[in-house]
Amino acid sequence: MQKILDSIDAQLETSLARLFAFLRIPSISAQPAHKADCLQAANWIRDELTALGFSARLSETTGLPGVVATNHAAGPDAPHVLFYGHYDVQPADPRNLWHFDPFDPQLVDGPRGKKIVARGAVDDKGQVISFLEACRAHLAINGGLPVRLTLLLEGEEENGSPSLAELLTKEHETLAGADFVYVADTNMWDAATPAITASLRGLAAIELRIHGPNRDLHSGFFGGLALNPIQVLVDILGQLKDETGRVQIPGFYDGITPVSPGQEKAWAQLGFDSAGFLGGVGLATPAGEVDQIPLAQIWARPTAEINGIYGGYQGDGSKTVIPAHATAKLTFRLVAGQDPDKIHEKFEAFVTARLPPDARAEFTRGAAAPGYGLNPNASFLRAAQTALTEEFGKPAALIGCGASIPVVEAFKTHLGLDTLLAGFGLDDDCVHSPNEKFDLACFHRGTRAHARLLGALAAGR
Amino acid sequence: MQKILDSIDAQLETSLARLFAFLRIPSISAQPAHKADCLQAANWIRDELTALGFSARLSETTGLPGVVATNHAAGPDAPHVLFYGHYDVQPADPRNLWHFDPFDPQLVDGPRGKKIVARGAVDDKGQVISFLEACRAHLAINGGLPVRLTLLLEGEEENGSPSLAELLTKEHETLAGADFVYVADTNMWDAATPAITASLRGLAAIELRIHGPNRDLHSGFFGGLALNPIQVLVDILGQLKDETGRVQIPGFYDGITPVSPGQEKAWAQLGFDSAGFLGGVGLATPAGEVDQIPLAQIWARPTAEINGIYGGYQGDGSKTVIPAHATAKLTFRLVAGQDPDKIHEKFEAFVTARLPPDARAEFTRGAAAPGYGLNPNASFLRAAQTALTEEFGKPAALIGCGASIPVVEAFKTHLGLDTLLAGFGLDDDCVHSPNEKFDLACFHRGTRAHARLLGALAAGR
Repeated sequence: MQKILDSIDAQLETSLARLFAFLRIPSISAQPAHKADCLQAANWIRDELTALGFSARLSETTGLPGVVATNHAAGPDAPHVLFYGHYDVQPADPRNLWHFDPFDPQLVDGPRGKKIVARGAVDDKGQVISFLEACRAHLAINGGLPVRLTLLLEGEEENGSPSLAELLTKEHETLAGADFVYVADTNMWDAATPAITASLRGLAAIELRIHGPNRDLHSGFFGGLALNPIQVLVDILGQLKDETGRVQIPGFYDGITPVSPGQEKAWAQLGFDSAGFLGGVGLATPAGEVDQIPLAQIWARPTAEINGIYGGYQGDGSKTVIPAHATAKLTFRLVAGQDPDKIHEKFEAFVTARLPPDARAEFTRGAAAPGYGLNPNASFLRAAQTALTEEFGKPAALIGCGASIPVVEAFKTHLGLDTLLAGFGLDDDCVHSPNEKFDLACFHRGTRAHARLLGALAAGR
Repeated sequence: MQKILDSIDAQLETSLARLFAFLRIPSISAQPAHKADCLQAANWIRDELTALGFSARLSETTGLPGVVATNHAAGPDAPHVLFYGHYDVQPADPRNLWHFDPFDPQLVDGPRGKKIVARGAVDDKGQVISFLEACRAHLAINGGLPVRLTLLLEGEEENGSPSLAELLTKEHETLAGADFVYVADTNMWDAATPAITASLRGLAAIELRIHGPNRDLHSGFFGGLALNPIQVLVDILGQLKDETGRVQIPGFYDGITPVSPGQEKAWAQLGFDSAGFLGGVGLATPAGEVDQIPLAQIWARPTAEINGIYGGYQGDGSKTVIPAHATAKLTFRLVAGQDPDKIHEKFEAFVTARLPPDARAEFTRGAAAPGYGLNPNASFLRAAQTALTEEFGKPAALIGCGASIPVVEAFKTHLGLDTLLAGFGLDDDCVHSPNEKFDLACFHRGTRAHARLLGALAAGR
């Protein structure tokens, strides 16, 4: 392994040159004017993979093609890794806020040494090339990869992945044989601490409309005697949580594994700056369950959130009306163990049980996706921890993400595969913003960590 | 008095002819195309008053003129009545729903005898002419009126009375000397039971905006940790009333005289059909204070009503947002004894005391008008009861009105005068709707009742 790492160190300059060539292609998937650039990027990466000894091809979709590449020379007994990335980038607007041409990559000084500045530097071209350079080192030193490797590089990730399901269905035979999916499109905890994202929250969306009188009423002539559906709506939604922040829907927390003291302690040691996190948006006080630490509130605990509410008069001044109906839109963020359909049912029962006479509730169910929790005994998790600990001198933080990552759900749904989320970005990388960057040290150590991971997976460490 | 009543009976046909002439003038104040018609109606009624022996004139405003007329021949010791009415009418749209031309008045059969069908039949030309015919009978039999009488006929009542304040200010000297205002633009309790409207509810309007984070947040990344201002809004407004319907704002009911057992009994005897009233708008159950009878809920008790609410996402589907703010618009219907400004203050204190950390409340105060309660010892009330009891064989119901009548407030504010509200319309008169009508019996008995009232006022009965 040391020879492989030495090779990576020695080749850093040429690795960067290859990344810069990739970054110069403005493959903006959201803008039809850049379609030819997207196709050029797909061809460029396919040719790179072919040159590295992969069997690589474009896989056409109704949108932009995917790039599919395989190198299974390690043989049927070797672990089979499916690496996912994307060759497209976000638009670079507003251009005038960039210090350099976003498609003329620069290596400049930053607060933590050199940094690569360009659109796509970290999201996701830098992370993809970092992984490919790790493969290159294995191939250069050992003449082969220690694992069976399949790569899937999408061209529409920054545009909502409209053809991903189509691609996964079409390439099912090629992809589904993998042991797991490896996605490096995520961040480290901080510049010194690698991270594995071990949980994602799911979602159950629902709209609630309370119906009262059969038409809008004059609140002078009817007020006091007639039911007001806005009042019914706030009366019920005002009971959603108790004073400790706990959701009051019966059975809402069924099936959830509580955050363990060990987990809580590990997260506490991360030194999360909740004051800074909240301060950045004008808040100061954690508003969730009072018996949960801030990181658990956003990573590990489900929520009941009113995303929108409306009813009656909303214009200037006032109008003395009792409206016929009032509406709220809610989403529940779910964690592993909760069934989105059951959450819909339980919320509906919670509301129905609280309806006064004459009020009727109409429910419109929306998106329903379960939370995701990485199996703590997954073999790839041990290998990832081994590799990251050896590279960074400390174990990776097992972090959560309060939102969903749609590709993870897609891999689970279409291929039945779990996903290892371990990338080398940092929170200050300006992803999707002007002056996107990737610290050179992150690119470099990421490459080394990728190389170690492939070795650890093969060795079963 | 009997001679006067006999004269009214004998002259009914010519009284109707005069009313029909007035009704043929399409004096629609809201439609600029009918401005000449409005002026024609003003001139017509001025000429009628002049012919009756009044000193009558138009009083110009920035809008349509008022008509001001006086007959003070009864001398300085006679009571001084200010009669208010209006010569304008509502638009007649939709015309295709009328059975006759709305400005070609008809006398046709109805369920309770003949009825006068035309736009303005009852609102307010019929009620105005009914009063004038009572004056005509007094003048014909006795050569004079038993009271000092001032008339103010407005031309913009159906268009929101934009120039009324101007008119009251300009004519202050002429109007302010009256003992009280007499408004006949209201209804009887039913076809057999006259009514005096003894109370009106006032209004305090306020907008409440709850501010949370300094921008809209992603409910995945922030949900659970960040304050949601919609939740704060519903939590607070969900505490507005307890399970008995009582408003929970401290001091809200201060200064209110409870409905007396005698009042409650009198209202109960009216046989109000609350099931029919609510059933007409798709409801079945009184939703106000459970210890109050339905009529008290709409006439005598104050309310806290949410007229509008909005915040966050309101479009199709869902959006995972925690919004920066959420807003509710409320009006409080007030009864006599409550101070609108104090209600604003108490609501603000109620909200402020319930704000969680990081939440900020912004209040925008709107309209503020006190409730109106007729002094039960007012001399004109006794005379009105005498007149109505003698005409209808039963005392007038002392009823309330859940809404405000702006002119009553204007007379109180600008002239310091109380108002006697006693008219002869019925609930099925289709006011503001196609096929507006005035029962001939109501017009006729109303004229007789007006004549009796003038006599009773003069006699101090």
